[in-house]
Order: sequence, then C-alpha cells, then structure tokens
Amino acid sequence: MAIREKVFKEIGDCFKRHGAVTIETPIFELKETLTGKYGEDSKLIYDLQDQGGELCSLRYDLTVPFARYVAMNRVKQIKRYQIGRVYRRDNPIMTKGRYREFYQCDFDIAGEYDLMVPDSEALRLMVEILTQLQVGSFTIKLNHRKLLDGVFAISGVPEEKFRPISSAVDKLDKTPWAEVRKEMIEAKGLAPEVADKIWSFVSLNGAPREMMAKMNDEKLENNSMAKKAVEDLGVLFDYLECYGVLDKITFDLSLARGLDYYTGVIYEAVLTDGHQVGSIAAGGRYDDLVGMFSGERVPAVGFSVGVERIFAIMEEKINKSKEGMRTTQTDVLVASIDEGMLKERMKICKDLWDAGIKAELIPKANPRLPAQLKYADDNKIPFAIIFGGKEVENGVVQLKELATKQQDTVKRSELVAIIKQKLSSRA
Amino acid sequence: MAIREKVFKEIGDCFKRHGAVTIETPIFELKETLTGKYGEDSKLIYDLQDQGGELCSLRYDLTVPFARYVAMNRVKQIKRYQIGRVYRRDNPIMTKGRYREFYQCDFDIAGEYDLMVPDSEALRLMVEILTQLQVGSFTIKLNHRKLLDGVFAISGVPEEKFRPISSAVDKLDKTPWAEVRKEMIEAKGLAPEVADKIWSFVSLNGAPREMMAKMNDEKLENNSMAKKAVEDLGVLFDYLECYGVLDKITFDLSLARGLDYYTGVIYEAVLTDGHQVGSIAAGGRYDDLVGMFSGERVPAVGFSVGVERIFAIMEEKINKSKEGMRTTQTDVLVASIDEGMLKERMKICKDLWDAGIKAELIPKANPRLPAQLKYADDNKIPFAIIFGGKEVENGVVQLKELATKQQDTVKRSELVAIIKQKLSSRA
Repeated sequence: MAIREKVFKEIGDCFKRHGAVTIETPIFELKETLTGKYGEDSKLIYDLQDQGGELCSLRYDLTVPFARYVAMNRVKQIKRYQIGRVYRRDNPIMTKGRYREFYQCDFDIAGEYDLMVPDSEALRLMVEILTQLQVGSFTIKLNHRKLLDGVFAISGVPEEKFRPISSAVDKLDKTPWAEVRKEMIEAKGLAPEVADKIWSFVSLNGAPREMMAKMNDEKLENNSMAKKAVEDLGVLFDYLECYGVLDKITFDLSLARGLDYYTGVIYEAVLTDGHQVGSIAAGGRYDDLVGMFSGERVPAVGFSVGVERIFAIMEEKINKSKEGMRTTQTDVLVASIDEGMLKERMKICKDLWDAGIKAELIPKANPRLPAQLKYADDNKIPFAIIFGGKEVENGVVQLKELATKQQDTVKRSELVAIIKQKLSSRA
Repeated sequence: MAIREKVFKEIGDCFKRHGAVTIETPIFELKETLTGKYGEDSKLIYDLQDQGGELCSLRYDLTVPFARYVAMNRVKQIKRYQIGRVYRRDNPIMTKGRYREFYQCDFDIAGEYDLMVPDSEALRLMVEILTQLQVGSFTIKLNHRKLLDGVFAISGVPEEKFRPISSAVDKLDKTPWAEVRKEMIEAKGLAPEVADKIWSFVSLNGAPREMMAKMNDEKLENNSMAKKAVEDLGVLFDYLECYGVLDKITFDLSLARGLDYYTGVIYEAVLTDGHQVGSIAAGGRYDDLVGMFSGERVPAVGFSVGVERIFAIMEEKINKSKEGMRTTQTDVLVASIDEGMLKERMKICKDLWDAGIKAELIPKANPRLPAQLKYADDNKIPFAIIFGGKEVENGVVQLKELATKQQDTVKRSELVAIIKQKLSSRA
C-alpha cells in the first residue's frame, strides 16, 4: 500500500502539472451504457442483477463512464484525470463467479480543439509519468485506426470485416504471423493473397520519421483515408518533437488495440528492458463515444496507465534494494524507562502532535525500553525520546537519533522546537 | 472534487501523524461476512446476485471488512486507516433498486494493549481531524456499552431485551422521550416504571468529571458491570486530559449507537453551532468482531469520519467566501499573440514541465489573446507568459503576474529559473 500511495501521488502530480481536474464516477453503470463499446472483451464485463430491476454492470474501464459523464452533463471541454478501481471477469469460465478488481489511472482531453494538439499533450504526459515512475526503458507503439482501415481496404478486405481482422492483427504482439494468417484465412474467410498483402504493411515498424518516408512511397496507393491519416501523423510527430518526446515513439502498423471506440491515433507503451508485462499504458482518440450517449459530438483523446503492472515492477525493485520501504512516516517514538510513565509519554505526544510532528507511543502502561526501541528500529523511526523518573524531575528528556546513536539531553520546554529543527534539516 | 481532495489529504495527514498504515479491502464481501453485524440497519445492506453462485454484498462500512481482514491474515496488532467508498440502500422502498455510494475515512487500532490507551488515542485523533478541518465547534458524546447494559439491568430490563431497548434509546437524539417511552412500553413490552427508571439514567449528560461524581453516588447500586465501566471511563478521562482533549467530551448516558458489534466505550461527534447534520464522526470499541471470523480474539477500537457531511459543510463555507476554490493548480499559462506560434508555445511548455512547473496552453493552433487571458483569469492561474513573433526574434517573452498586472520582459534562456523563483517566493 505504501508503494501504491507513492505511485498514485506521483501520477496525480503529473496530471495536475497539466492542469487536469479530477472527477469521480460511480462503480456501477447501467448495463446498456457499457454494451457495444469493448469489442471481443465485452465478455469480461461483470453484470449485476439489481434487486430493484435496473440491470447494472461494474465499470470495465474509466473511459466509457467518463464519456457518459461528459454526455450527461453536457460538458463541452474538459481535461480530467481519474484514479479508480475497475472490474473484469478475467478468465470467466475457469473462475466462475469471481471478479477481478484493479486500479486504473486515466487522463483525457475532451472538446473541439485543433488537430493533434491534445493528442500530442496526452503522449507527452504519458512519457512524463513513465519517466517519473522510473519504470525502466520503454517505447510507445503508435498507429492510426484510419491508416489501419486504409491498409485493410488497399489489401482487399471487405469493410464489414475490418473490425474482426483488426482483432486478429491485435494478436501479433503475442502470436506469430503464421498463426494470425491462418486465423484470417480459415476463421475469418480472407483470401491468402489478401492476408499476405496485409502482412506487407503490418510487418512495418520503426522510428516515426523513417516510417513516414516509407508511407509516402506509393505504398498507400490512392486510399485517401490512409493518406489523410499519415498526413495527420506528420503533424503529430512535429508536435511531439516540440514536446521532446518523439524519440519515445515507435510507429508500428501492427498496433490495432482491441476496443471498438477508437477512431484515430492509438498507442500503447511497452517496456524494452526485457520485462514481459505487456502494455503499461495505452490510449488513443475516440471522437464518437460521447455522441453515442448524447447525440452531440464531443471529440476526445486520452490514455490509461496500467498501474497494477507498475506496482509489480516497483515492488520488485524495492525488494531488491537493501533498505526496503517504510510503511509509516512516524518521525519520533516517545519511549520511557521507568514504570508509571504513561501519562508523561502521552503529554509529550500531545505536544508533538499539536506541533504537527508525526509521533507514536507504544500503547501499553509499562512497556520495556528494549521493546520500544526495537519498535522504532523495525519501523525505521529516525528519532526516539527517552526518559525516566530522573529526567522528569529535572525537566529534561534524552533525544536519540537512531541512525547515528547520538543522544542529547534536551530541556522539556525546548523539545518541540529542537525536534522541528532537526526534522527540517533532514528534509 | 477539489474540496474532497483537500479533505482527504488533511485527514490522511492526521492519520499518518499517528503512525497508521493504510490497507485496502475489496468493495465486495461475502454476504455472510456482513450478516448479524449491524442490528436494525442490516436492511440497508446492498446484496448482489453473483453470477457464479457466491452470494456477495457491497461493503456497508469499513469496520467489518477490516475485522475480516485482520482475522483472515492473522494480524495480531495493527494501527490502520482507510479512505474508501461504502454502499447503503438508503430508503430502499422509496427508491427501489437504487444504491447510495459514499465515502468514509476510518481509523482503527487492533491488538492486545493496556486499558483505554488506544481508546484515548483514537479520541485524540478524532479531535485533531475535526479541528484540522475547521468544521466549527463540536463536542464528542461518549458512553460505555457496558454501563448502558448495567443501567438496563438496574432498571429491570430482561437481558434478551437489552439490544432492542438500546435501539430505542438510540433514537433519543431525534425523538422526544415521551415517544421513545411509548415505544418501550407498547412495542417492546417494558413496564412503565422500568422505562421511567431507564430515563432517570439516560437523561443524564454533562462534562466528564461532573458526570463521574454523579455516577459514583449510589445510582449504580451494586451492578458490578456498570461500576467497572465507570471505573474504566475514569481511566479514559485521565488519559484524555493528558492528550488535552477532555474538554471536547460530553458524557451522555443516552448515547447507544445502533451497531451490534460495540462492546465498550462508544462515541459520536456532533456540531454545536446549530448545524443539524447529525454525527460527523463516530466510533467505539469492538473487542469481539475479529474473533467472530477467526475464533481468535483481537480487541479493537476505532472510528469513522462521515466525510460526506463534512464536504457539505466545507462547500457551504467556500461558497460563502468571495474567492471560491481553484479546481486546478496550474501556475503558468503559455499564451501567444501572433498566428503560427503553437510550436513555440509547446516548446516553452516542455521546458516548464521538464522543470516540474504546472503549465498549460490552449490546445488550439491560433487562439486569440483575450480568450487565452480569460482562461487564465477564470482558472485563477497566477502567471501568464505572453509572446509574439517580435519576442521570439529577440529571444524574450513577457511574464505577467495576473493579480498585480505587473509585466516584465524576460530572457527566454532565464525564463524557467525566474518562474521557479517567483513561485517559491509566493509559496
């Protein structure tokens, strides 16, 4: 949990750095709100039998509820972030009746803005977050839905098969081409030469500028949709260069993203250091989703950070380090030597808390000193106040810094000021 | 949401000041986990028909899931806090099929400790939080379950009626005695003289020390349970005096708290400034709850802050103030005068973000300057960077402080450093 809190704090700070506001949406949505938004993943939605009659589902992601919120509240422009839990029936047959609950951190810009300006900010922010979290080296695979559709058209895929074929292409990150090709031909009814023509495109990936050069060859023939998408990507790449993040992008024609609602640029961050954790952040443009609820078009772009995977990476790192991580932030343990000192410990704690200092006492009447110091040690508490009857008589306490073992006699009346000073010089 | 974030941050800081760790529990619990824990409020639990067979309920509070967590993980000692949403079918008949979802902030100390030491820290922390949040003047009504049971015994209530009569007493904060008396006699079958004897106790309330004097008269006769409870409260009051919060306590014999699981001291904070919002924080000791899950007794004490009510109070205050509250934290708007300046705005934003400065640009290619400055104004952004083609040529920008309207020409190469300095001198 301490790791989680740290990650949420850092991601939240990045969101705020870009002027985003946060909203909250309920855990539940009407079932119909989620229907038809997630393509083949729809089977993972967790439905509830509502006692009163309305059929509800647990939210599957934060994007569709956000779009519903924008539509319902007639919002015209918003830059929002949200950190919340979502629910997926992972492997629903094997683990019948079990739900999976996990966190997502989302950022979205909704509103009518100029071409690729919000898109480039979203990508810049994604890079900022992954850099800030020190997840390791990564790249953002990027593609454009309309370019992919153009590729399908050029290759001879009939339009009604665009989405199923897109789903097949989406598997290329985990499945070899031979297998995907088989699926396209046998399960989805493409002619072998159509499949092979698709492959001549989707096997292409590389640095954005080099890929642009390739795309501007005859390859795209006269498909205006694909040509327009490439043109738009050119604008995006210019902006990403201004934002200093173009080197983080891999233009990858095989990136398809499973979800139905994307309409433009799509992207997915993956680690390049050998970690096989899949994508750690992903997003894209979805211009029609809000309009599906309200009939009024509010274009939008955004992404989601897969924080659970990032937690795992961070935990691994912290476990490897000798220090470990503190679970509490306590600065001072108030300890006593002799019996009957509980009320005095309480009074000192009171003064520390009154001054906003993080302090604890062992909640026992007469704890032994070694047990108290062990507690401070185990919890990496930097300072201990130690006193017995003699100190109380003389109006002093011992102030011990545990790391250096330095111990000073301090006047009770000056204690709070001295601790404040020591803490601020450590910070 | 900005208010919520502020409240959560402040409450979280108070929890951390006392060395608490945070845990999370799922939104769902098995239905049986929640059964028999909430007395008459059980009808407000929101049940789910699980698709796979297990019957689940949404959590009704954070206490029972915490006890289940302690039991399941065989935790012996923990001081934990949790901020999370809970679910109650408020007025379930009127609003059939609707759930209510709201936040609670909980703090609990579980473990075998010395008499009243954790209890006094919990009460101290409750006072810290309510003081920190500036909710207005408040008092904490406090009672002891065993004293109340002793009172029932002395009054001649048969033991099997203790809980139903306790529920009736619990209504005294909203209902006049005559009505509660009627309920006791007509609905719950007490003799009138038994009811009146109860009233001779539960009508008592006042400052702790004065009440103790009253209790130590013959009133409690020879009921050892009640006498022990009063003795224990004496210890608690001593500790609360050490912690400097005894003056916040009202010893109120009519406080009953509806929930079944309390076994010792119980308390409830209410505003004394005329706000009729009910209790804004409440808690008590529940020594048997963990054992109900694991068979192993882990005594515990804790409280819950009713933050929704506090949000309402804060919102009212902020709406009354002229300033209002910022929804974003952006420090700098990067604005341009002439056309074709988008990329230059992007580059400046990049530099600011790289330096950790909260900055925004209007995501349009050629926004008008007045529209940009209006945005800064509306969002209370303190600084604006303004430039046109001439400034770019000369390697400068205008840096404007919006409140004072002071505008300086600043070298582009020194911009980030100057803004950092201005921001830190404002902080």
